[in-house]
Amino acid sequence: MKLLQDLIIEKGKVINESILKVDSFLNHQIDPMLMSEIGKAFFEHFHKHNVTKILTIEASGIAVAVMAGFYLQVPVIFGKKQKPSTFSEHFYKKMVTSFTKNVDYEVCVSKEFLHPCDRILIIDDFLAHGNALKALYDITIESGAEVVGAGIVIEKAFQKARQNLEGLNLDIFSLAIINSLKHNQVEFLK
Amino acid sequence: MKLLQDLIIEKGKVINESILKVDSFLNHQIDPMLMSEIGKAFFEHFHKHNVTKILTIEASGIAVAVMAGFYLQVPVIFGKKQKPSTFSEHFYKKMVTSFTKNVDYEVCVSKEFLHPCDRILIIDDFLAHGNALKALYDITIESGAEVVGAGIVIEKAFQKARQNLEGLNLDIFSLAIINSLKHNQVEFLK
Repeated sequence: MKLLQDLIIEKGKVINESILKVDSFLNHQIDPMLMSEIGKAFFEHFHKHNVTKILTIEASGIAVAVMAGFYLQVPVIFGKKQKPSTFSEHFYKKMVTSFTKNVDYEVCVSKEFLHPCDRILIIDDFLAHGNALKALYDITIESGAEVVGAGIVIEKAFQKARQNLEGLNLDIFSLAIINSLKHNQVEFLK
Repeated sequence: MKLLQDLIIEKGKVINESILKVDSFLNHQIDPMLMSEIGKAFFEHFHKHNVTKILTIEASGIAVAVMAGFYLQVPVIFGKKQKPSTFSEHFYKKMVTSFTKNVDYEVCVSKEFLHPCDRILIIDDFLAHGNALKALYDITIESGAEVVGAGIVIEKAFQKARQNLEGLNLDIFSLAIINSLKHNQVEFLK
């Protein structure tokens, strides 16, 4: 997606060899017109799959997912991040390790909103090692619903999520794929 | 807004005399078509005010704010919630007490995205005592920008935010206003 690549080049900040900061249009300040274009791109790729719901994770996934949900005309569920806590029978919970932020958290989704008849599209802003995506996948499978694919805004290919998630046979559709952030440069694969 | 009132009646859960749970269309599962209608309503009310940016707070404010930003064609900044921490010169920070959740947190907004020339529309999902709105207002004023108004999805009038914020002379535009949650009933003022 050229618009996205251009914004990454123009406004993204390479913090180090593994972190790209896109706070000015995705993670703190959000560009709603970009979100709309991203939503349309996910619609184009996934609309044949009879998606019934989108599952994302707070906070930066929400804007993207809501626009995709608008074009696909389906509800969006956002998983809530919280510190590991006691068991609650009303929620699906999976532990996620964020290497970028160096924290563990639980992602929680109410059992009320996922059903065995659902066909779930997972959406997230970044794909790095694949831990958050794996947690959302596991929650969906635990509910009995099916995962039809994953829509990602920016994939950092060098952090090898696709290899880590290989066994899932998941259709991962990323709008921008970064091969390397070395030498303070963004090198795209796509 | 009749669509919103109908959803509150049909799907909202009155937990007690002060808490209304709307997890099925606003706070955990989100209805993107409703978000779009809400975005249009905020556009209708505020488009004359030359809004340059929207300021909201994670996580439930984001979906509403992004749709409003889409129709107003302006960027959206979401304040990040974090535990009270040490001073950082790169962020505006204000303490918020959430009576509903019985926690204190700081809302943080990068100084990079608010400028004295900005005309800020604050948007949030709920208005209760007005603490989150006051924090977003104070952050905007500290940046030198102007607040043109506040768009709220659901106001709980009995928690008296308007009285608490009286001195600010703020145009608070709420799409649904609840007078009481007594006797397990939602009584609307609007």
